[in-house]
Amino acid sequence: MSKEKKSYQATVYVRLKEGVLDPQGTTIKRALGDMGYNGVEEIRSGKFFEVSFLSANRKEALKLVNQISDKLLANPVIEDFKVEI
Amino acid sequence: MSKEKKSYQATVYVRLKEGVLDPQGTTIKRALGDMGYNGVEEIRSGKFFEVSFLSANRKEALKLVNQISDKLLANPVIEDFKVEI
Repeated sequence: MSKEKKSYQATVYVRLKEGVLDPQGTTIKRALGDMGYNGVEEIRSGKFFEVSFLSANRKEALKLVNQISDKLLANPVIEDFKVEI
Repeated sequence: MSKEKKSYQATVYVRLKEGVLDPQGTTIKRALGDMGYNGVEEIRSGKFFEVSFLSANRKEALKLVNQISDKLLANPVIEDFKVEI
């Protein structure tokens, strides 16, 4: 509270780990085939989150975003995440 | 069929348009507040798709990915998309 905080923007990309089945991607691929797009080999789906937040400095900002990604945005059992600030 | 096709990788990022409510983002922000993370100002959620496909050249590849994004991956009424090859 005594320090001034700055606003940071981060993007967290969450994707299924290699080897984890992606039913959404499979369904989309099949639908594209039905629509006549037969050249599609694979589709993997993922999520991203654009986070705006206050932090004292860049190091703290990265720490915060990694924490909330690990605890809430991603499921570490089946998902990987990547943070960009 | 007569031309040789190459494999391309594209990523399509789909996000809600500005002004469209994002209940998932709002819920995550509230949950983070409950967990003690009070510095979060806003969270917007989005999806991405990693697409592997065959195409004759880069121009055709871009055209294909834009088509399937517009027709299937995104809902143009409420979502914008961005393609990276």
